[in-house]
Amino acid sequence: MTDSRTEIGTIGEFGLIERIKTLTTVTNKNTLLGIGDDAAEILSSKENMLVSADMLVEGTHFDLTYMPLPHLGYKAISINVSDIAAMYGTPEQVLVSIGLSNRFSVEAIEALYEGINAACKDFSIDLIGGDTVSSPSGLIISVTVLGRTFNGTSVRRNGAKPNDILCVTGDLGGSFIGLQVLEREKQEFSANPDMQPQLEKYQYPVQRQLRPVARMDVVNKLRELKIVPTAMIDISDGLASEALHLAKASGVGVRLMEENFPIDNLVFETAMEFKIDPTTCALHGGEDYELLFTIKQDDFKKIEKHPDIHFIGYIQPENEGNILISKQKNVLPLEVRGWAHFDNT
Amino acid sequence: MTDSRTEIGTIGEFGLIERIKTLTTVTNKNTLLGIGDDAAEILSSKENMLVSADMLVEGTHFDLTYMPLPHLGYKAISINVSDIAAMYGTPEQVLVSIGLSNRFSVEAIEALYEGINAACKDFSIDLIGGDTVSSPSGLIISVTVLGRTFNGTSVRRNGAKPNDILCVTGDLGGSFIGLQVLEREKQEFSANPDMQPQLEKYQYPVQRQLRPVARMDVVNKLRELKIVPTAMIDISDGLASEALHLAKASGVGVRLMEENFPIDNLVFETAMEFKIDPTTCALHGGEDYELLFTIKQDDFKKIEKHPDIHFIGYIQPENEGNILISKQKNVLPLEVRGWAHFDNT
Repeated sequence: MTDSRTEIGTIGEFGLIERIKTLTTVTNKNTLLGIGDDAAEILSSKENMLVSADMLVEGTHFDLTYMPLPHLGYKAISINVSDIAAMYGTPEQVLVSIGLSNRFSVEAIEALYEGINAACKDFSIDLIGGDTVSSPSGLIISVTVLGRTFNGTSVRRNGAKPNDILCVTGDLGGSFIGLQVLEREKQEFSANPDMQPQLEKYQYPVQRQLRPVARMDVVNKLRELKIVPTAMIDISDGLASEALHLAKASGVGVRLMEENFPIDNLVFETAMEFKIDPTTCALHGGEDYELLFTIKQDDFKKIEKHPDIHFIGYIQPENEGNILISKQKNVLPLEVRGWAHFDNT
Repeated sequence: MTDSRTEIGTIGEFGLIERIKTLTTVTNKNTLLGIGDDAAEILSSKENMLVSADMLVEGTHFDLTYMPLPHLGYKAISINVSDIAAMYGTPEQVLVSIGLSNRFSVEAIEALYEGINAACKDFSIDLIGGDTVSSPSGLIISVTVLGRTFNGTSVRRNGAKPNDILCVTGDLGGSFIGLQVLEREKQEFSANPDMQPQLEKYQYPVQRQLRPVARMDVVNKLRELKIVPTAMIDISDGLASEALHLAKASGVGVRLMEENFPIDNLVFETAMEFKIDPTTCALHGGEDYELLFTIKQDDFKKIEKHPDIHFIGYIQPENEGNILISKQKNVLPLEVRGWAHFDNT
């Protein structure tokens, strides 16, 4: 990247596509044809295809005052890969469509693709197509990810059975706390533009918000251990919402134990600084892109010691409902809470 | 549809997704899992997968003052199917992501999906996923289409050889003329809101603009006749632009004959009414979504009499350039013309 600014109009849409194409390398053996024809072509195999799409819109999903474009590009790919991970699949290709106004220079688009390409490299996937269009207002990024099942098996949301153990990867609530830190810095900066942002101290939660990493590492570990979860979902909207989705799809109830929720120390402290209950962040914060899954009791021993897999509850019969056992051993109903009601906690 | 207005906020994002899901039926035998999990799942076969994406943005690609939402939904699917048709493929599934502001009611979204579903039915494809997000400003529709090769063969842009015959389906320039009619009506209406739109007379070009139909019928006919084009592309940006893409990818030149360009009578007359050269509409108008393809001379006899396939030129060696033979037998260079220069014709 340089500091110069090239207007998109000077190279045109086809010029921009050519530029994006030169930044792109095709490495996945199953990609037969990438960018440049009417459609891309992908090699068939015995495995079924998995496909998912997510759209990110400026002003709704990201704020470019604190979201660097390479991070945004990385995040757009990572959150899609997370959907394939949540099916126990292997991601292979992405298509990225972007809508952008003339506020964006060619260099800005290259910065966005720098992040997209970094994520493609990290997850061994190819950018094989998409669209580049003019938008009257903000930036829009629409990603479709393609993947493949592993050993003919996909893990859906609907296979959890009573007595299965509920597992979650990584830690929860960090992304939401990172967002609070960034929003506070933005407000302080707009009040006093000479101020330097104080983000070093909050690096972990900020990174969770800006550059989440899909948990393909955990999926690969589960495969290695020959553990096929009975149900799985990724955490984009918060643990409570996802646990309820999984329970509903499986026709069961969930029993969550607050004392087992994995919350990073810095995230915990920062939540306290913001006077927000850390458990509320874990339950309702969202954007953690961790995996929530259920395993049979028999598989527990195989992953008991895994440092990044946490056992946060059990599946129970549907008629026992969806409940949360608090640290004080109170039995609370598990509910999705809109952020409008956040102040009532 | 009813005249009532339900705010999206009253049913929420999940409510909206549920509503969309109930409007959707899965009929393609290769769709194993549609909307409702982290990803959709598609059955593997011996055929390779084809995939393409297009994004439509309000204010850039459509104007809701004259574009009815069901037509917009239909068009969004049809133009994506056209990309699979241009690969000689069979479309099977689509993912549709929409970004929308609270200007849109639940009923408006249902009207959009009415068109999406009508197109899915017409092309025997399933809506299997996507995303529904809030957008601060206009409507955004991002579609990804998945398809499959036919008999292990995809037709790309790069296979044309000298002496191949250049064919085009349907007729050209209609969509551009339809747009001119709609823009004129919009201006007259804004000058005099009591005026009734006068569109009956222009039904054909207006329909070409509002509700284009991907030419799967022609692809199916070619398959039936065992004709595999040597190269193919769909006409989204105008004949000149697409012919040059095909020539460049194939490393050849094209020789177009104006006298053979298929232009509908009403389109011709309306172009004259607008004082626009009909040939210019065919060459540079775009959005016709017809197919441009090349065949070997040996295949000519098989489709010579097809009423909807027209023979508009030849492939020649690259060093003979890309040329247009005018009706007056003048030899002109074939160039892409931006609409900024349109007045100079």
